[in-house]
Amino acid sequence: MEAENRLHVAVARAFSLQVHNNSVKAEIIAIGSELLTPDRVDTNSLFLTEQLNRLGIEVVRKLVVGDQRGQIRDSFREALGRAELVISIGGLGPTEDDLTREALAELLGRRLILNEAILLGIQARFRRLGRQMPEINQRQAMVPEGAIVLENSQGTAPGLWLETDGRIVILLPGPPQELKPMFTQEVEGRLAWRTTAVRLYKRELRVAGMAESDVEQRIAPIYTRYPDAQTTILASPGEVQIHLRAWSADATAAEKLLKEMVERVVMALGENIFTTKGESLEEVVARDLNLNGATIAVAESCTGGLLAQRLTSIPGSSSYFLGGVVCYSNDLKRVWVDVPADLLESKGAVSMEVARALAEGIRRRSGSTLGLAVTGIAGPGGGSPEKPVGTVHVALAERAGGKERTLHLPGDRDRIRWQASQAALDLVRRHFLYAQQGKQQNRG
Amino acid sequence: MEAENRLHVAVARAFSLQVHNNSVKAEIIAIGSELLTPDRVDTNSLFLTEQLNRLGIEVVRKLVVGDQRGQIRDSFREALGRAELVISIGGLGPTEDDLTREALAELLGRRLILNEAILLGIQARFRRLGRQMPEINQRQAMVPEGAIVLENSQGTAPGLWLETDGRIVILLPGPPQELKPMFTQEVEGRLAWRTTAVRLYKRELRVAGMAESDVEQRIAPIYTRYPDAQTTILASPGEVQIHLRAWSADATAAEKLLKEMVERVVMALGENIFTTKGESLEEVVARDLNLNGATIAVAESCTGGLLAQRLTSIPGSSSYFLGGVVCYSNDLKRVWVDVPADLLESKGAVSMEVARALAEGIRRRSGSTLGLAVTGIAGPGGGSPEKPVGTVHVALAERAGGKERTLHLPGDRDRIRWQASQAALDLVRRHFLYAQQGKQQNRG
Repeated sequence: MEAENRLHVAVARAFSLQVHNNSVKAEIIAIGSELLTPDRVDTNSLFLTEQLNRLGIEVVRKLVVGDQRGQIRDSFREALGRAELVISIGGLGPTEDDLTREALAELLGRRLILNEAILLGIQARFRRLGRQMPEINQRQAMVPEGAIVLENSQGTAPGLWLETDGRIVILLPGPPQELKPMFTQEVEGRLAWRTTAVRLYKRELRVAGMAESDVEQRIAPIYTRYPDAQTTILASPGEVQIHLRAWSADATAAEKLLKEMVERVVMALGENIFTTKGESLEEVVARDLNLNGATIAVAESCTGGLLAQRLTSIPGSSSYFLGGVVCYSNDLKRVWVDVPADLLESKGAVSMEVARALAEGIRRRSGSTLGLAVTGIAGPGGGSPEKPVGTVHVALAERAGGKERTLHLPGDRDRIRWQASQAALDLVRRHFLYAQQGKQQNRG
Repeated sequence: MEAENRLHVAVARAFSLQVHNNSVKAEIIAIGSELLTPDRVDTNSLFLTEQLNRLGIEVVRKLVVGDQRGQIRDSFREALGRAELVISIGGLGPTEDDLTREALAELLGRRLILNEAILLGIQARFRRLGRQMPEINQRQAMVPEGAIVLENSQGTAPGLWLETDGRIVILLPGPPQELKPMFTQEVEGRLAWRTTAVRLYKRELRVAGMAESDVEQRIAPIYTRYPDAQTTILASPGEVQIHLRAWSADATAAEKLLKEMVERVVMALGENIFTTKGESLEEVVARDLNLNGATIAVAESCTGGLLAQRLTSIPGSSSYFLGGVVCYSNDLKRVWVDVPADLLESKGAVSMEVARALAEGIRRRSGSTLGLAVTGIAGPGGGSPEKPVGTVHVALAERAGGKERTLHLPGDRDRIRWQASQAALDLVRRHFLYAQQGKQQNRG
């Protein structure tokens, strides 16, 4: 809770600041009954928020309503009563339940007029697909008086831009593959010159090997001294993200502020921070491997391929990743990676000794610079009093020796597997980090 | 678009039905400025919707507002003007920007009274953590007149239940690990006996090896004939989900309706359906392997461990999964899985011949019943005119022979890798399906 609290204070301060920064205020209305089921969450608004923030526009309200004309009309009325910019998502299709156009036209008392140009465009689109335009698609060519048409390069539903009493209303289609290009090509430019000089400036730091509460405790004294910035701490298994945001009309001041905050946070958390640029841990490790001309191979037990999958998720990973084995059975640990049978016998498959043997074995078998291994108990079964579920050993082998770490991880099978892969990748990152520091000391 | 359209029609019909089914209507208000950034999406409302639907309560509006007292108060006013049930999430913390209690008390004109029992509870909680309760936490013990306190077994912020003019308002805390148990332990029972006899009944079918538009085209003639059910089609890479929902006060009728729909959809899509119970493809494959007492081992190139990771994501996977190799380099394909050098030379690593050799090789090397292999080009680099990015070969080897499939997959690296793993798993599923059908024919 404490973490939550401090976070909230910081957020509240930052947002109160935005007010007298008078950034433009926007509301987003996502329209579609399927968004009111447990299966669908509106993610378009995250993309829009990101884009609007870049233009210095702050999203102050997000709403999801179903496909009922009255609901939609009322939502527009309420939003236009508050915000300077209202963006709706969805309900522009050709069917009887696509009612966004009608609801808004009704609210603003504007007639819907058939737009020949749009109609021809839709007809042409169907022709290209070798089909007749269904009669019902004609509805998509109906435009409220005075609206600007936003071209849809990816579908039949055009977007619309209306202005009323100095307010702007933008209607965008629901499918993300249509909404995103439309915003970039048709909306961004039109909005840019209307916004104030206020912009959002941000940094994203990521931390491995620390709990959220520890991160919170160490950096709260820092960010609470910066009420002009919004600090958000996001925790996911094996990783804590620190998002710093500053709304400002003064780019230099904002950048200076964030630079100073980043420096202090880095000082407070040190080598636990693996990026100040929002990179993933596998991206950082991939860069380290490439910069050092090193190759890697992995031997996994409990992570079951997750470690290899993450290392190969980076484009061009074949430059550093030679291969990996997932050896679940003791037999295969022996036959594929030369883990001595007596070791498996005496120490058990889940032991630091076997982790070491796996790392060294895979390194020799693949001829890689580094061998990386994970063995552990992901659960739910397989635990024991001496080795409970969540017990994980990670080991890194290189010619000169190696590194290792034993973890006792909380959570379910997925969580444990992910944290184990995170710990293994972090072992590689710290290996290169210390090597680097070593060199520097030798120089000094 | 067409798919979208038919989907919308079905949704609209189903929702219009719910109205004269008069299910209880609810609105959800998520409170927190961090939910208005591009980094956070409210997922609590998905859990709540699922739970409310089970009780026959329909969510008709979802709102996200920031930590401003006026905003929160207005949101409650608007929601209470429409819905019989209003549930808020968040803003119950102890800090100055946790304003949900105050905003609602102000709206309803009720005084906030210090609740001694809650205060003692919070103090006790801090004592257990070996700490003094910070002064500010006292705010969490302030309760609007006439409110029922909902105990928080996981944190300091209690929930609240208020009734006003026959409307119910429920205040829940933001952290999911606090909200979920509170709903189950404190809210569900209180709601259950107030709801109508209307309940939501549902089925979830999943399809592999078909495009969304093909699924849509084949089943639209079916579900459009069932206006009493809501049909939602969700497409993700390599998989299409069909969600069937029926709101009804008559359990027998609803179950009969869904049973009939499922039977017709199954007839229309046949063996492309891998579950009618919402299982994942790896769950289905795991069951097939266990039922047939078969074991499996995998050899992967472009999927880079994803295939092994999915097969081992199921608890108890060691009963059927022996091991896997990720052989990126041609060398390791040769050395680890005995792919003939001349084959790699003449056909190239991305070829059906090599896929076959990988599957047979890993089967022999591991002594498994089945060998499963994937080789392909996930991109963005590595494509050529003859073998463009997205070219993938999957092969299954067994003693009696094998199965194989060549795919040309769209999308980015992640998408291609996922679809490739999906195709490989589906090859195993169909292997057992045909074996089963074979047996049945022999019997007949």
